[in-house]
Amino acid sequence: MQRALEIAREGIGFTSPNPMVGAVIVKDGRIIGEGFHPAYGREHAEVMAIENATEDPRGSIMYCTLEPCSPAIPGKKTPPCSNRLIAEGIGSLYIATLDPNPYVAGSGAEQLREAGIPVYVGCQAEAATRLNEAYFKFIRSGEPFVHIKMAMTLDGRIATHSGHSKWISDIDARRGVHALRSEYDAVMTGVGTVLADDPRFTVRHVPGRQPWRIVLDRAIMTPMDSQILSDEHVAKTMIFSGPGNDAIREKMIVERGAEVIRVDLDDAGKLNLSQVFQILAERRIASVLVEAGSRLVTSLVREGHFDKVSAYIAPMIAGSGIEAVGNLGTDSMKDALRLQAVKYQQINDQILVEGYRDLQHIYGMLSENVQCSQELLKSLAK
Amino acid sequence: MQRALEIAREGIGFTSPNPMVGAVIVKDGRIIGEGFHPAYGREHAEVMAIENATEDPRGSIMYCTLEPCSPAIPGKKTPPCSNRLIAEGIGSLYIATLDPNPYVAGSGAEQLREAGIPVYVGCQAEAATRLNEAYFKFIRSGEPFVHIKMAMTLDGRIATHSGHSKWISDIDARRGVHALRSEYDAVMTGVGTVLADDPRFTVRHVPGRQPWRIVLDRAIMTPMDSQILSDEHVAKTMIFSGPGNDAIREKMIVERGAEVIRVDLDDAGKLNLSQVFQILAERRIASVLVEAGSRLVTSLVREGHFDKVSAYIAPMIAGSGIEAVGNLGTDSMKDALRLQAVKYQQINDQILVEGYRDLQHIYGMLSENVQCSQELLKSLAK
Repeated sequence: MQRALEIAREGIGFTSPNPMVGAVIVKDGRIIGEGFHPAYGREHAEVMAIENATEDPRGSIMYCTLEPCSPAIPGKKTPPCSNRLIAEGIGSLYIATLDPNPYVAGSGAEQLREAGIPVYVGCQAEAATRLNEAYFKFIRSGEPFVHIKMAMTLDGRIATHSGHSKWISDIDARRGVHALRSEYDAVMTGVGTVLADDPRFTVRHVPGRQPWRIVLDRAIMTPMDSQILSDEHVAKTMIFSGPGNDAIREKMIVERGAEVIRVDLDDAGKLNLSQVFQILAERRIASVLVEAGSRLVTSLVREGHFDKVSAYIAPMIAGSGIEAVGNLGTDSMKDALRLQAVKYQQINDQILVEGYRDLQHIYGMLSENVQCSQELLKSLAK
Repeated sequence: MQRALEIAREGIGFTSPNPMVGAVIVKDGRIIGEGFHPAYGREHAEVMAIENATEDPRGSIMYCTLEPCSPAIPGKKTPPCSNRLIAEGIGSLYIATLDPNPYVAGSGAEQLREAGIPVYVGCQAEAATRLNEAYFKFIRSGEPFVHIKMAMTLDGRIATHSGHSKWISDIDARRGVHALRSEYDAVMTGVGTVLADDPRFTVRHVPGRQPWRIVLDRAIMTPMDSQILSDEHVAKTMIFSGPGNDAIREKMIVERGAEVIRVDLDDAGKLNLSQVFQILAERRIASVLVEAGSRLVTSLVREGHFDKVSAYIAPMIAGSGIEAVGNLGTDSMKDALRLQAVKYQQINDQILVEGYRDLQHIYGMLSENVQCSQELLKSLAK
């Protein structure tokens, strides 16, 4: 299963909104076939493993990081894997997690069991769920997985008073951020960051595919000569703006090949974030990396529109400057948001802090699913 | 030497302003004697090791974490160790570092060498210097070693807007702070912290001796019923205040058994910090742990009156609130203070970040000493 998880990552950045999946076939203690889901619309891991098999897979053990898909999914792009596994005479199946997709949700495992193939669920379940945390959140809630990245000093500053922020993180930390970008469907920022830093949000320093660039820009103030409206990836730029009559600027942006999407304003006169994420979900953008200033980050945190935080902290003291997070209305420390499942990683003299807003919100589907499939599991345990 | 460093720590909290020292005597590959400096004015580690020796130390090897003291020190409380080592016929001596005390500074090693005992300097020098970092700073500069402790959220808040800070750190982190207190000669705070939190600054949760409590309180606003003026350690409370006519309050404080010390104000109308630290040094307070609010921490950082920072970061997001460090006049991130020799330690879901303002400032004496003793070292290398 460890190996299956490893090869699943080969599809990183390309499978969305599908999950990454890896499959390994073992016969007489030897690996005879491996496969992964390389990209959305391409073959599934189980099928690739069977087709790569160097021997007849009849009677073998298959390890798969996710439950195989079943005929229950409407409008599928590929034939259901469960049928193929039965046809090939796979002897037994270990899966890390059931598929939270409500159309699968245990039906794949059930079908295989009915065909007489023993199915064991739960080996490396946590690692497999983490691997596809964006998929789990997206399929469960219908909203993208939102990951806020911050780079700050030890005293919580993301820039000096004058807006100067280069560089808080060193090149190795920034390389990590570029790798993150390549794993996410989109990078989101506010127009303030575009005006201050003119970022490209491209994947440099590491190989990987270019994500969408999303700017929340109520009054369409993104400069026409900004990099995201000028570079070779301009077609991957979306500007969200409020209802208004900036028709000329909108036309100019569209002529450059980018897109302008109008959403409503909320009571505070800001872009309606729920609507933004709903539109992104409709466009099958399942995961968003936020690289923004204090204002957008504060709105996302206050409204609960985020799932994960990665804070790169440099051992610097800047004193007063631009704060990482603004007013959340926290009166008592007890009311402060405490991140869950926190992990620390040292990068040279910096530390990367990662944590989740609400694990239940992301992984809940898994346990619910397991509950839904209680009967299945009981029968599996026999 | 590893063992000598271990036992040196037995004196922690009691040797100041002397350093902690450990000594181990080895004969025929077996440890035959161990000693440490237990407290200021008590026997030295080398002497204790000799007196504890289970065999005649003649011809043995001694490992000592610091250069033995020499007859060159005026007004010594104990006879010089170098004489004793010669008298006992110690065969050879390994020392981790020379003693930065200008009265020793190589003279102990030199005397031993002249008596025909080979002396080797530098084994575990860094660990030995770290062990006595407060002593090194104090003896080198004549000012106490100042260590700022902060507890803050991931976004750099030490309290909410309403001043609420309990608890950012959990009990295990707080236990670490109590252990730190027992190692320092004094805990320093500002009157704002006394008014907001009424702290005791006692050593609870862990064993250890009570440090001095120092309050910077320009206008003598420390309440008479505050814990530091009411508890059983009131005689270990010092209040620094400005020149003024709060004679009645001063009298009340003195009657309670605490002390009021007047210092001048600086150009900004705040207590003159240089003068405060000078007075503390005269009183042989060699190390100060600062547990204070934003105002005092900002002054110390801005004026360079600190040597080390320990920041306990909890994975919480509080949003706007009280900042850890206020205005330092940092315009460009390049001008932000970057801590040196940074170390990270995870404590449950929190991270402790430790770093130094200027290692050279603390350890410089060591290298200068080594330079001064270049000739000695050359002769030793023969």
